[in-house]
Amino acid sequence: MGDPVVSGAPQGTPGLGLDPVVTRLLNHADDNMVLAQRLGEWISNAPELELDIAIGNIALDHLGVARSLYTHAGAVEGRGRTEDEFAMRRSEREFTNLLLVEQPNGDFAHTIVRQAFFDLYQQLLWADLAKDGDETLAGIAARAAKENAYHHEFSGNWLVRLGDGTEESHVRAQKAVDRLWMFTGEMFQHETAGYRGRWEAAADDLLAEATLTVPEDPYQKSGGRVGFHTEHLGFLVAEMQWMQRSYPGMEW
Amino acid sequence: MGDPVVSGAPQGTPGLGLDPVVTRLLNHADDNMVLAQRLGEWISNAPELELDIAIGNIALDHLGVARSLYTHAGAVEGRGRTEDEFAMRRSEREFTNLLLVEQPNGDFAHTIVRQAFFDLYQQLLWADLAKDGDETLAGIAARAAKENAYHHEFSGNWLVRLGDGTEESHVRAQKAVDRLWMFTGEMFQHETAGYRGRWEAAADDLLAEATLTVPEDPYQKSGGRVGFHTEHLGFLVAEMQWMQRSYPGMEW
Repeated sequence: MGDPVVSGAPQGTPGLGLDPVVTRLLNHADDNMVLAQRLGEWISNAPELELDIAIGNIALDHLGVARSLYTHAGAVEGRGRTEDEFAMRRSEREFTNLLLVEQPNGDFAHTIVRQAFFDLYQQLLWADLAKDGDETLAGIAARAAKENAYHHEFSGNWLVRLGDGTEESHVRAQKAVDRLWMFTGEMFQHETAGYRGRWEAAADDLLAEATLTVPEDPYQKSGGRVGFHTEHLGFLVAEMQWMQRSYPGMEW
Repeated sequence: MGDPVVSGAPQGTPGLGLDPVVTRLLNHADDNMVLAQRLGEWISNAPELELDIAIGNIALDHLGVARSLYTHAGAVEGRGRTEDEFAMRRSEREFTNLLLVEQPNGDFAHTIVRQAFFDLYQQLLWADLAKDGDETLAGIAARAAKENAYHHEFSGNWLVRLGDGTEESHVRAQKAVDRLWMFTGEMFQHETAGYRGRWEAAADDLLAEATLTVPEDPYQKSGGRVGFHTEHLGFLVAEMQWMQRSYPGMEW
């Protein structure tokens, strides 16, 4: 794979004027929060009931990680913001999740490809952060790494099953790879940990096993990490926050 | 509470011409399936992240019960229908869930009242079915009874917290009780186990603790158990089945 052409946002901006330590926590919290919301949309809507449950559990894992990271971000920031304030009271522009995770579910193949790409990334991320000097973060990452092992197995197995399955499932999986590839470069844009090479190697292997091909188009889209999102996030955030907005300050 | 006036459907019809043993399993499977779908709509939409996770877990429990019951119904029926065929390939008219569980989420208080009413019912139901002569059903019920103990605690505690909380939360909880009460009579309409008296006593106690009052209007609505649903189920089933309908016979 060549060097990607990245467009869509100023590069390297550390995000919205917050402390970079807080920003880092929010980046990963938002990834998990937004993906949990997307996956939650599958509950009772998956093609098989067994998948409903599997995807529902994965959604709850991501939501749990998001909660831990928001709470920790609030403690580090020291301004008393709670997990709920981060999730429910920020505008779309303040969310710093990757564009990849806000992409709509599409069909089941599309959801699996999105998940497989993200799981490969989180596998590297959690292994790395589990050794972080911030002990709370390291603890969250160690727990998340265990959950990721299961997610990763689930999405990887399904990707192979779809890619190397029927003609139709292969076509659908390849179409999803082609559509989502442009959002993969952003995972590494603000990282200095050198994940890209390892991610690309792992993705190459997985796609090859699934008899799928890596798109040749070098175009990449980014901006999520600095608050420039695709048109999809606004709806997702509105959906996520409607209860809070309908009854502001309501004590449930 | 006086004798309810029940309208809306022929009474005592054992449902859609199926074997009554199969019908009984499908009744309870459908209750859990439909409620799981409703609760799943809360994931990432609850007023607090902690509630997202709690409600998400409850949704997955109900979905698990539905799966077990559908699978068992298919085995008893002996025509080779799988859990997925029951969930994905029946029309709205073939679903026999209670009207209560198909009612929309409304606000959080509305969801909690619906859940509390249903949890009280399932508490009686699972205790009873755990002693059933059908050993598979008894096993499913015993497992569900354990999960129900947690659901019941959750919905009961929240109902008291809302009813005996702020002025606004009290008003909302009472409004939900008033709206949903008409769907409670149906829980006992086709039962011969004498749950009604025990359910009413438990509901009276819970509502009293929550400083809420039992509605005096005796009007009751039923029909779900014989396939006559409120206008809400059609949308829910369409949502649940769109993937199957979009790609009929698709092998994922």
